[in-house]
Amino acid sequence: MDIAILGYGTVGKGVGEIIASKTPGISVKRILELPDRLTDPRMTSDYGDILSDGAIELVVECMGGIEPAHTFICQALSAGKHVVTSNKAVVAAHFAEFAQLAADNGVSLYIEASVGGGIPWIAGIDKARRTDTISSFMGIMNGTTNYIVYSMDKAGIDFADALRDAQEKGYAERDPSADIDGIDVANKTIITASIAFDCPCVRDLPVTGIRNLSKRDMELFAKHGRIVKLIGRGVQDAGRYAVAVEPMAMETSSLEANVPANFNLVTLVGDTVGELKFYGQGAGMLPTGNAVVQDVLDCAEGIRRSYDFSSGCTYDPDLLRSDYVLRTTASVDAGEPYDEGMRLFRGLTAVEAKELLAATIENDPAAIIVALG
Amino acid sequence: MDIAILGYGTVGKGVGEIIASKTPGISVKRILELPDRLTDPRMTSDYGDILSDGAIELVVECMGGIEPAHTFICQALSAGKHVVTSNKAVVAAHFAEFAQLAADNGVSLYIEASVGGGIPWIAGIDKARRTDTISSFMGIMNGTTNYIVYSMDKAGIDFADALRDAQEKGYAERDPSADIDGIDVANKTIITASIAFDCPCVRDLPVTGIRNLSKRDMELFAKHGRIVKLIGRGVQDAGRYAVAVEPMAMETSSLEANVPANFNLVTLVGDTVGELKFYGQGAGMLPTGNAVVQDVLDCAEGIRRSYDFSSGCTYDPDLLRSDYVLRTTASVDAGEPYDEGMRLFRGLTAVEAKELLAATIENDPAAIIVALG
Repeated sequence: MDIAILGYGTVGKGVGEIIASKTPGISVKRILELPDRLTDPRMTSDYGDILSDGAIELVVECMGGIEPAHTFICQALSAGKHVVTSNKAVVAAHFAEFAQLAADNGVSLYIEASVGGGIPWIAGIDKARRTDTISSFMGIMNGTTNYIVYSMDKAGIDFADALRDAQEKGYAERDPSADIDGIDVANKTIITASIAFDCPCVRDLPVTGIRNLSKRDMELFAKHGRIVKLIGRGVQDAGRYAVAVEPMAMETSSLEANVPANFNLVTLVGDTVGELKFYGQGAGMLPTGNAVVQDVLDCAEGIRRSYDFSSGCTYDPDLLRSDYVLRTTASVDAGEPYDEGMRLFRGLTAVEAKELLAATIENDPAAIIVALG
Repeated sequence: MDIAILGYGTVGKGVGEIIASKTPGISVKRILELPDRLTDPRMTSDYGDILSDGAIELVVECMGGIEPAHTFICQALSAGKHVVTSNKAVVAAHFAEFAQLAADNGVSLYIEASVGGGIPWIAGIDKARRTDTISSFMGIMNGTTNYIVYSMDKAGIDFADALRDAQEKGYAERDPSADIDGIDVANKTIITASIAFDCPCVRDLPVTGIRNLSKRDMELFAKHGRIVKLIGRGVQDAGRYAVAVEPMAMETSSLEANVPANFNLVTLVGDTVGELKFYGQGAGMLPTGNAVVQDVLDCAEGIRRSYDFSSGCTYDPDLLRSDYVLRTTASVDAGEPYDEGMRLFRGLTAVEAKELLAATIENDPAAIIVALG
């Protein structure tokens, strides 16, 4: 099968390497790159060369970002080409549009690499959905923030030092906000919920990051037998669903609490299969490249994927309630005492928790709110 | 698609229930049962009724045991019917024969439910193998023994009490030897290694169980920051492989150490995907039934499975070396001190460890040997 790769950065190169060395029968015919980066005879900077090439059955989008990835994916699907993408931002923003275009043109959209890197998470949900109603999912979906909280816990260092270490090791970007403010996890949560609950997930879900997490917070939660992780999650019940991205203080005996370094751990609960957890490298050239190549191989083997989002499930933030700990120097009368400078609020929705944090931050920009997992 | 189920015990019934309520398009046409158990018009005690029925494309074997399951599977494959089985004992004993018969007759053998219940473990290995060399696998593959060691650890009780509790809860058989002596894990290890290393795995691998594990052992290992789990594992390197089933003392910060109750956790390491872990219910009517139904659905969707065991990998026990702790009241001069009544032996193969235990048990039938994980 002839394929084209759009973008030859870290993921694109990983895909090229794995395909060249491991998958006879798959051939990278064209690579789309910027005009000043055409270092390989297969490379072109004119996407029309790829769209008009009838021999190319599959386009692998590894560019990242919203545009031109969005336009290129739409054009490939409209041209009757299957699409594999590792681009969570564009899938989270345009999933329903892509799914509809794929269906209209009789081709498939493969997105395994968009969540959890080499972990067969999307495949796991797709599989579970064939027999089960997925009542909930949750997990550590971002390796960068797990590396940061893991370092804070193990080395007893503060957030800024852990972030700097993650940046030096190449786990965090120079501008880390997509990771530490939960935007990356929000995209992955949207994609996961859309598939697990079979409906286009809302994009304005409550998202709280870990930017304000301090060494002292980690120490106080440790006293309570907990360690903070950044968690994306969703629940479904009786035609309604809710989703959230937040720091959660997990019990130290939980598997989540023990996830090391930059690994991910994601969980689904189905009515017959029960609780399933998947663990692995959520990012990196080879793990993400592996997930892309798995999708390419599925496509070559004739395994088709379609998402019709037909469950009719509606968003209801009321469905997701947790106990929350607000840590602030501001004077707060509400809630119950939890620990020094910390107040416990029972049974808030994630939206209410985010509102409480927003109100507190007006007086104390360093405040943080953490759900109890 | 019309299918037949052989055996309508716990797993067979679970399969029937899931198919009836969840999978339109799949129809259970016949059920093989004993003559005195024919309670449903689809039931027959004559296997010929099923073999000769050309409309039945797939036979689901849920009987357990070696015979007549082995004969029935061979006959179904020879009759050009696909086979799904949850029977680890018969697959471990006759995997190469089944795989050859399936290939000769152009049909598939589906064995997801034989290892890890509802966990997509076989699918995970099959998938990883398409792109990766699997250098190793390991894991908690038996829920009964995990329940026992988990209870011993959490409740501080002795082995006999934990076993009795597991029996009362229905997690352990009245004759628990297949679980506690490692036979069940050995079968799952053989199946896993055969697929992961693409060769028919030897059947006389070193197997040590947890029958002699005591509350005191758990306490002493806890002092060293470890908890004992029964682990099946295998490694592959440069055309050779080794496998073993043993109690292993895992570091308390490992995911394995934190697996609760009767759950399983299995790990593979591939050269591009890295370390992948899968967690879930390894047994039970619905989880195992789910795995069987997933295989049935794969078959109905035209996804074929074949195992040709063509790697030429050869068995070499020397490949798997660990440090071991021998606990005995017998006087032992060899090794180094580890703790009270415990001696540490560095870099033994699993075969050497088993021989050391066998020699020790002649003087101390309660001795146990535990690998350091």
